[in-house]
Amino acid sequence: MQPVSFRSIASRYKAIFFDAYGVLKNYKGLVPGVKETFAFLRENDIRFYILTNDASRSPEALAEYYFRAGLPEITADKIVSSGMLALDFLRSKVNHGTVAYLGPKRSAHYVETEGLKTIPIGDLNLEHAASVNALVLLDDEGFDWERDLNKTINLLRLRNMPVIVANTDTTYPVNRDSVAIAIGGIGELLERIVRKTFIRFGKPDAQIFHFAYDHIQQDGPMKKEDILMVGDTLETDIWGGNKFGVDTALVLTGNTRREKAEIWIEASGIIPNYICESVAD
Amino acid sequence: MQPVSFRSIASRYKAIFFDAYGVLKNYKGLVPGVKETFAFLRENDIRFYILTNDASRSPEALAEYYFRAGLPEITADKIVSSGMLALDFLRSKVNHGTVAYLGPKRSAHYVETEGLKTIPIGDLNLEHAASVNALVLLDDEGFDWERDLNKTINLLRLRNMPVIVANTDTTYPVNRDSVAIAIGGIGELLERIVRKTFIRFGKPDAQIFHFAYDHIQQDGPMKKEDILMVGDTLETDIWGGNKFGVDTALVLTGNTRREKAEIWIEASGIIPNYICESVAD
Amino acid sequence: MQPVSFRSIASRYKAIFFDAYGVLKNYKGLVPGVKETFAFLRENDIRFYILTNDASRSPEALAEYYFRAGLPEITADKIVSSGMLALDFLRSKVNHGTVAYLGPKRSAHYVETEGLKTIPIGDLNLEHAASVNALVLLDDEGFDWERDLNKTINLLRLRNMPVIVANTDTTYPVNRDSVAIAIGGIGELLERIVRKTFIRFGKPDAQIFHFAYDHIQQDGPMKKEDILMVGDTLETDIWGGNKFGVDTALVLTGNTRREKAEIWIEASGIIPNYICESVAD
Amino acid sequence: MQPVSFRSIASRYKAIFFDAYGVLKNYKGLVPGVKETFAFLRENDIRFYILTNDASRSPEALAEYYFRAGLPEITADKIVSSGMLALDFLRSKVNHGTVAYLGPKRSAHYVETEGLKTIPIGDLNLEHAASVNALVLLDDEGFDWERDLNKTINLLRLRNMPVIVANTDTTYPVNRDSVAIAIGGIGELLERIVRKTFIRFGKPDAQIFHFAYDHIQQDGPMKKEDILMVGDTLETDIWGGNKFGVDTALVLTGNTRREKAEIWIEASGIIPNYICESVAD
Repeated sequence: MQPVSFRSIASRYKAIFFDAYGVLKNYKGLVPGVKETFAFLRENDIRFYILTNDASRSPEALAEYYFRAGLPEITADKIVSSGMLALDFLRSKVNHGTVAYLGPKRSAHYVETEGLKTIPIGDLNLEHAASVNALVLLDDEGFDWERDLNKTINLLRLRNMPVIVANTDTTYPVNRDSVAIAIGGIGELLERIVRKTFIRFGKPDAQIFHFAYDHIQQDGPMKKEDILMVGDTLETDIWGGNKFGVDTALVLTGNTRREKAEIWIEASGIIPNYICESVAD
Repeated sequence: MQPVSFRSIASRYKAIFFDAYGVLKNYKGLVPGVKETFAFLRENDIRFYILTNDASRSPEALAEYYFRAGLPEITADKIVSSGMLALDFLRSKVNHGTVAYLGPKRSAHYVETEGLKTIPIGDLNLEHAASVNALVLLDDEGFDWERDLNKTINLLRLRNMPVIVANTDTTYPVNRDSVAIAIGGIGELLERIVRKTFIRFGKPDAQIFHFAYDHIQQDGPMKKEDILMVGDTLETDIWGGNKFGVDTALVLTGNTRREKAEIWIEASGIIPNYICESVAD
Repeated sequence: MQPVSFRSIASRYKAIFFDAYGVLKNYKGLVPGVKETFAFLRENDIRFYILTNDASRSPEALAEYYFRAGLPEITADKIVSSGMLALDFLRSKVNHGTVAYLGPKRSAHYVETEGLKTIPIGDLNLEHAASVNALVLLDDEGFDWERDLNKTINLLRLRNMPVIVANTDTTYPVNRDSVAIAIGGIGELLERIVRKTFIRFGKPDAQIFHFAYDHIQQDGPMKKEDILMVGDTLETDIWGGNKFGVDTALVLTGNTRREKAEIWIEASGIIPNYICESVAD
Repeated sequence: MQPVSFRSIASRYKAIFFDAYGVLKNYKGLVPGVKETFAFLRENDIRFYILTNDASRSPEALAEYYFRAGLPEITADKIVSSGMLALDFLRSKVNHGTVAYLGPKRSAHYVETEGLKTIPIGDLNLEHAASVNALVLLDDEGFDWERDLNKTINLLRLRNMPVIVANTDTTYPVNRDSVAIAIGGIGELLERIVRKTFIRFGKPDAQIFHFAYDHIQQDGPMKKEDILMVGDTLETDIWGGNKFGVDTALVLTGNTRREKAEIWIEASGIIPNYICESVAD
């Protein structure tokens, strides 16, 4: 499959769904040329939406990054994150009592806006386990892995409760050469050890696509065949988009390097409609 | 968790999502008292929708069963099946060429209405593998397992294509004492052997819930908190409903027997809001 | 990793363990040059042993193949098969009552030599399930997959018993272009559906290596560092040999083609000491 | 299955294989009555051997515990640990260069006795990744989980090397109410993230049973049918013993509580020959 120019294919669609990390930005900042791409979308009257597996901060905080980086088009109402969906779930299904969490305080603050009390696992006294109504895995940072992961499995042995994984990613890139274990990977470890079924939010699951799809209808009706999902990861962005029923484009600015793209597509059976060097291409 | 009367809880909701097999009907026919329950729903102005993991026949054929059984309220437009979603996918993402399938001819006929050509794996000549654009697993019946499953793995070695599993169930009950391997179980075997990622449709995935949710809005807006999902299987009906964000009730007329219910809930971590003996209760 | 001549490395060892299919023979018969290799081993006083994942017939029947093919050195006492180990297990751990099986009658005959009664799943009346003390999966042929796999899961729901998988392979090559699902693959499907732990025999498990290792001591003591395991499959032959603690050589005459060898080694992390074109090289 | 007296069944065997933790000792010290049991074994001329999934210290250090606790019969030569097998592997298969490890320094010291250089992951400079010939997971303590697990996955991305997990356990009890994640659980997380095949040592694998079996022959020949494996864990002790072909007894002084024993046996399909309250019974 030969890479094609992103703009040449984008113009065939009425809306684009973008993954964030590895597509619009990376560890060095905005991907070069992204601003021109958004100008192109505006000129051609192509709508867009950002679908990101991220529960470390609120859409407002995510939008602020783009504003400062010179991309004011990406406002909070153009972003759906896996963390937002996890929050919706907690609001509708748990709605009272205490939610224990793994992650930094800034992400907990974001849950607390809903009136639910939150407590980091590190501060929880297991003798009060009966007061905990849910556990949410928000981020891989902000806690002591050894102490708090062990505490978590003992909490889940003491009390049966819903466990929400607010980001399905297993790793994320920290620079050109290194990755780190994401909270989704930690969730798989815990799920395997306690043998319970956790509730995951984020691509490739259909929910995040439905959220974006419903939103984009607000500016006029839009069919699935008019939408293109653009991402750097086969297992989340491309598989999720394929399954949701929209066309998909794999970009080579993130998790999938050019020399691996064909091999991984062949090996996984996850086939994008297009491959592009970059969204700036 | 003590079983409660279904009608007593149903009256708190504005809409009910029902699983079909094990909830409304079983190997012996309609669950006794189901007709009275639907009269109760009508009297109380409670909307309903049927969500079924079934790709063996069309919604029209499914509805005909209820009509003949004396439940004319369940018309085709009140039913969403995993097979319908698989069909939507084929229409929007494959849309030309030949689709090979595992299942009986009556299920293929149902795919063919969309203009795609279909061919049973058993009739396919592997020298023409290049003409096949997708494979769909429809049902566990209507083919020679040994010959056609071996043929399928060789087809997938020859050509990279989307593989759609139109029903996620791994087994289904055939009478009081026996189960049979469903096409979802066969899909897992094939997926494991060819090491590709198949595309599955059906509960617990969010898509089938979204379809029902969107439909039910047509008779007036409805929030998730006003909807109850009723099913007999923790892993599909209850987990899917929980994750989608609606309340859930487990009934004991199908896969989950009373004496196992508590143990399985504890072991899986999948917790329904209610347990009811039957929807007729 | 550059392929090296098999003979040049074989001469550094005092004993060679060979996989059979894909190494000594394939769907066309003996691999060309194998006879000369065995003459070379004899001249250089290098002992050998055959380790094969096969439960379809007895070592005597396997040896007869080599005799007829002009390789009389490979006698029954030089062969250990996964089927032999399964038989040992049945003899020592079950030792009375009836053993139900999946596979052809010729493989059952081989179990029966131990005085245990056997019955093919197809002939079993499930009302007599209480008389069955074990189930053994022998081969992928000789039964009706649809009828007998469904019968098997119902047998295992009725009665808790040891299930023995007498061959861990998931597929096997039937000619240059095609593979077939092996009984090990069928075992994984059943294990997943009934959620029980089956007992598997064959490479990469240590038992088959221990059996060969113990036998080869009978002609004089032999250390692990003096033994080379030769196979065509990374996941069974090479991983098993590595883990058992002997050196390993991957040959390219079977499951692993030259163009895939490096990629699969990199992807799996299973690293042979050597790669050789063929044992005849 | 009714619990039976341990001594009444022990007297039918010529040798007993014991798991250590949960059988002979627990977080409070020796299980009460264990000394009398070992006196009983001596009087009845029953041999014994200890098979333990432990890589945190040497057999000598393990034996010293029993000596101090008043059980001098359990000398280092009566113990086989998963760590010893991992060490054997490193000696025979890696044998030069540097081995990186996760675990405390005291466990590394034990590897170093073989002349291999060792370095804790925490001290490793990833720019020197090329000098590392193997990675060994020894224990869950003695390192910074967040920093060092992330470093480990980046090491394994940089260089393809054998990874040895020196203890297959996923959790271990720390007191009556709590468990901790063992290095085997951490191994599964890493294996899943880097998608490589790690090499595991410990029950239920056959190797540790073979080691004990070979050793016990030194005081006179002994058949498998004369040996009883005693353990507190179905998935390791009982499954491993069953598969190796010796009889098995589950004791209720460790991981498996009386009220769960029948349910877990039914659910797993792992069936011991006997259940005993305790080895002191």
